[in-house]
Amino acid sequence: MRTLLVCISLLFSIFHYTMSQNIPRNNSKVTLVIHGGAGTITKSSMTPEKELAYKEKLAEALKAGYNIMMKGGTSIEAVVATIKILEDSPLFNAGKGAVYTNEGKNELDASIMDGNSHQAGAVAGVTTIKNPIEAALAIMNNSPHVMMVGRGAEEFAVSQGVEVVAPSYFHTKDRYEQLQKVLGSDTTKLDQSIESEPEGKLGQFNDEKFGTVGAVALDQYGNLAAGTSTGGMTNKKFGRIGDSPIIGAGTYADNSSCAVSATGHGEYFIKEVVAYDIAALMKYSRLTVKEAAEKVILEKLSKINAEGGVIALDKNGNISMPFNTAGMYRGYIQKEGNPNVFIYKD
Amino acid sequence: MRTLLVCISLLFSIFHYTMSQNIPRNNSKVTLVIHGGAGTITKSSMTPEKELAYKEKLAEALKAGYNIMMKGGTSIEAVVATIKILEDSPLFNAGKGAVYTNEGKNELDASIMDGNSHQAGAVAGVTTIKNPIEAALAIMNNSPHVMMVGRGAEEFAVSQGVEVVAPSYFHTKDRYEQLQKVLGSDTTKLDQSIESEPEGKLGQFNDEKFGTVGAVALDQYGNLAAGTSTGGMTNKKFGRIGDSPIIGAGTYADNSSCAVSATGHGEYFIKEVVAYDIAALMKYSRLTVKEAAEKVILEKLSKINAEGGVIALDKNGNISMPFNTAGMYRGYIQKEGNPNVFIYKD
Repeated sequence: MRTLLVCISLLFSIFHYTMSQNIPRNNSKVTLVIHGGAGTITKSSMTPEKELAYKEKLAEALKAGYNIMMKGGTSIEAVVATIKILEDSPLFNAGKGAVYTNEGKNELDASIMDGNSHQAGAVAGVTTIKNPIEAALAIMNNSPHVMMVGRGAEEFAVSQGVEVVAPSYFHTKDRYEQLQKVLGSDTTKLDQSIESEPEGKLGQFNDEKFGTVGAVALDQYGNLAAGTSTGGMTNKKFGRIGDSPIIGAGTYADNSSCAVSATGHGEYFIKEVVAYDIAALMKYSRLTVKEAAEKVILEKLSKINAEGGVIALDKNGNISMPFNTAGMYRGYIQKEGNPNVFIYKD
Repeated sequence: MRTLLVCISLLFSIFHYTMSQNIPRNNSKVTLVIHGGAGTITKSSMTPEKELAYKEKLAEALKAGYNIMMKGGTSIEAVVATIKILEDSPLFNAGKGAVYTNEGKNELDASIMDGNSHQAGAVAGVTTIKNPIEAALAIMNNSPHVMMVGRGAEEFAVSQGVEVVAPSYFHTKDRYEQLQKVLGSDTTKLDQSIESEPEGKLGQFNDEKFGTVGAVALDQYGNLAAGTSTGGMTNKKFGRIGDSPIIGAGTYADNSSCAVSATGHGEYFIKEVVAYDIAALMKYSRLTVKEAAEKVILEKLSKINAEGGVIALDKNGNISMPFNTAGMYRGYIQKEGNPNVFIYKD
């Protein structure tokens, strides 16, 4: 009897191995696109050193995700690994570089969506999770829910082994100084134009007003994925949720249309259901990913003075990265394996 | 000089009065549609008394909103007044009748959207606001944000004069007993089939699994509005956010397409961007409101075993109320002023 079970088990293993070899793979379509926020990012407000630091970090993130997918990893794995690198860098308003609320706290939001299974996970208003994208992933994979907020989200993340840090981990001197500049005005950073600030006054950072990081990926199995992570807006009222953790607004992925991650004035992106609107224009109006993304960002949002941008990717590896601000940290990598990174309108 | 200013001011007043009389009004299109949740609501699980109680409350809510609009009130005012009546009734899972989280708390969510201005407001995870729809309205009208959660949302609501109650206000014996029935199982009510429960075992309530209330309205100025309010799911993990406070998922309104309020298995409604998908099908695929709402609920959601329903209304007063569960508390009122209310599949 035991021998029989071993034989059956062996046959199953051989069967599964054979099947896994038959999964259609197409390395040539492996694509990863990322953004690190959009805003008043101009050449005149940059130093060569800062520009290099941003470009190097974007390239590092692109290569990390790309390598995962070239080794057979999924688009979800690539999106998470890529976003973690951006979260861990103080250059971007997500994870370690998060801005401060008007209470002097860092509240973080993130979301992820799998274009194949159509599963999704999101966290909002968390203050102790080192990599919010990991918590979003845990919710997607291991909970019956899609979106969790605050302490409830943190407790769930802890139960899943997601790394927790003291809130002070997110303290960065330059972000704190950003808050002090706007405190007392009761305006969020969004409302404040600092384009005329003398160069360098904001320390390490330019005015990436809508600092958010995101990634969209297409793996060799033909599956799309999207993820977004943010520290929100400087001086936002605590408890405010932007578009980043909202499926359909800041993040969306569906193999039948596209994967999208957004960065911008979150309130408008929620009301205009930006990420899903791009997918809907592809599905229902038969636009290409480029036409759909540009229509939403350059026409619809520009018309109502809503600033920001998106990265979008379809199942054939077609990329679009439109934005209606001065700049958007962004980049992509495809089969050749060379990261292409950009900051300004080129 | 002073006389001149008074004269100019008087002329402006006359001009404004004249203009206000010229606002195109069309009483004949005034329409209000409401729902009180969808689920396993069957005739066999009802007593005549319960049925009457539900129908009377739905009719009361419809008449209240209708009267506001017939007296010149806006669709937003009608939606808020209607939802407040349903929130204040322990019959529905919103406001006073909210279900319990697995921590034994009542966490409430609500959202509202104006189809004319395209403004929106939402609260999630609030525990002390008597009428969450009022807090959503305050956020829409008086904050730069769209969505606020938890204590931050409550503090903002308080600053706006929204009525606050002790969390014990939301305690209802029957809802607490519902929680006790599922506690320990670590399943939310959503996962639990109680269709075979003997009649009356759940006390006052039937299994309105997806207890949520909502309203969509068209006023005499031709403006659409939508609102939704919920107590979430019995035994949900605390911190869980469903579709009700998510613009595009549980609530959406745009004069150019439709107003929608949803009730159902929130996780699916978020991932399928249900409310905006109906609008997108109207805008991009030129479906009628009935075709679009039925396609999303009866085809797309049914295909993935996602249960629930929506109420939808277009700018011409066309109504759709599809659901794929046994029943949905629902009703509408139009120019004749007679409330029409329904519970089961008729």
